[in-house]
Amino acid sequence: MASTTDDKPAPEPEKVAPPTEKAAPEMEKAAPPPEGPPRDRFVVVDVFLRLLLFACSVVAVVVMVTSKQTKMLGRLPVAPFSPVFKQAKFNHSPALIYFVAALSVAGLYSLITAAVSFLALLKPSCSTKMIAHFVIFDVLMLGIVAAAAGTAGGVAYIGYKGNSHVMWNKVCNVYDMFCHHVAASHGVSLVASVVLVLLVILSVYSLSKKIPK
Amino acid sequence: MASTTDDKPAPEPEKVAPPTEKAAPEMEKAAPPPEGPPRDRFVVVDVFLRLLLFACSVVAVVVMVTSKQTKMLGRLPVAPFSPVFKQAKFNHSPALIYFVAALSVAGLYSLITAAVSFLALLKPSCSTKMIAHFVIFDVLMLGIVAAAAGTAGGVAYIGYKGNSHVMWNKVCNVYDMFCHHVAASHGVSLVASVVLVLLVILSVYSLSKKIPK
Repeated sequence: MASTTDDKPAPEPEKVAPPTEKAAPEMEKAAPPPEGPPRDRFVVVDVFLRLLLFACSVVAVVVMVTSKQTKMLGRLPVAPFSPVFKQAKFNHSPALIYFVAALSVAGLYSLITAAVSFLALLKPSCSTKMIAHFVIFDVLMLGIVAAAAGTAGGVAYIGYKGNSHVMWNKVCNVYDMFCHHVAASHGVSLVASVVLVLLVILSVYSLSKKIPK
Repeated sequence: MASTTDDKPAPEPEKVAPPTEKAAPEMEKAAPPPEGPPRDRFVVVDVFLRLLLFACSVVAVVVMVTSKQTKMLGRLPVAPFSPVFKQAKFNHSPALIYFVAALSVAGLYSLITAAVSFLALLKPSCSTKMIAHFVIFDVLMLGIVAAAAGTAGGVAYIGYKGNSHVMWNKVCNVYDMFCHHVAASHGVSLVASVVLVLLVILSVYSLSKKIPK
């Protein structure tokens, strides 16, 4: 567009070619300023989502780990009629142990990748390879976190409703606080899964933006 | 900044430009032969993986649905001492119902996307957008299938081992065939999750191949 004001007396056939040729170097020079902001924006959103994933993972793990609840279930039928206490905690269930392990790994992963992504903000190079690797690891992490959320959800549902067919009684009528913790932690893990999906979509979007039309 | 370079070396870009312009049509002519095979290979592998996902989904659903087992648990203690039968089937557990629903959706999805991918093999256009969309849907499907595998796995583990803390007895010592079906179905769903991860990696690889260095 700028080249139309440059040369007036030039013949017409040459006029058509030079603008494109001139436009090319101009584009090359002009490229960093317009391309910079979207890339930066992508990395900023990427870092933000990774920190959000870290927050979700930490919250899910902390809420699950602090779910311990002790209840007095009754008293001994004989003297001295001492009370009977029973505890519910997450490590009574292998499913919830897996949940805590998976979310801990996700938290560590999100912290490391947030740092890498932040460094990429300062040093804008090797970005295509980095994004491709991010997608692969994000997808693997999504598989782990979604499976953990599913596992915890499945067990929590039995705890909440029971299953009369196999005589598994519900426990949430007794350990209410424990169940609230498990439910909250499960909800936060679902948010973590959604954040991982968003991270993959963002990476794929930024990859496809780099492909010439 | 651009105006300082325009005045003197104006002819140079024109000299430099023609070879590139000549090179461009050559590239265009030369492009189809080298670019064709890898793209085709990508689509062939993509179609193969989607058909594999379809097979996994169908097998997982069929094995789960046919897991019904009836067992004689004893006889009535009073005359006529008739036998007591009890059934175990997947729809006694909401987790396994969700599993069947999720894998059915994955099967349908894989069939549709295999058809779309196969059509892309015949008509090589709009591929970048298609791949980007495939990645997004594959990631969503991975979340659903991984969560379903986790849910079924969590419940199956309780059925296999029980949980003494909450008095949930194991059922696999009674319903052995039912448990074998659930375990097999769960294993196949894990393969389906791995296939979905491979699909995403393949798509990202083919996207990053399109990006000029």
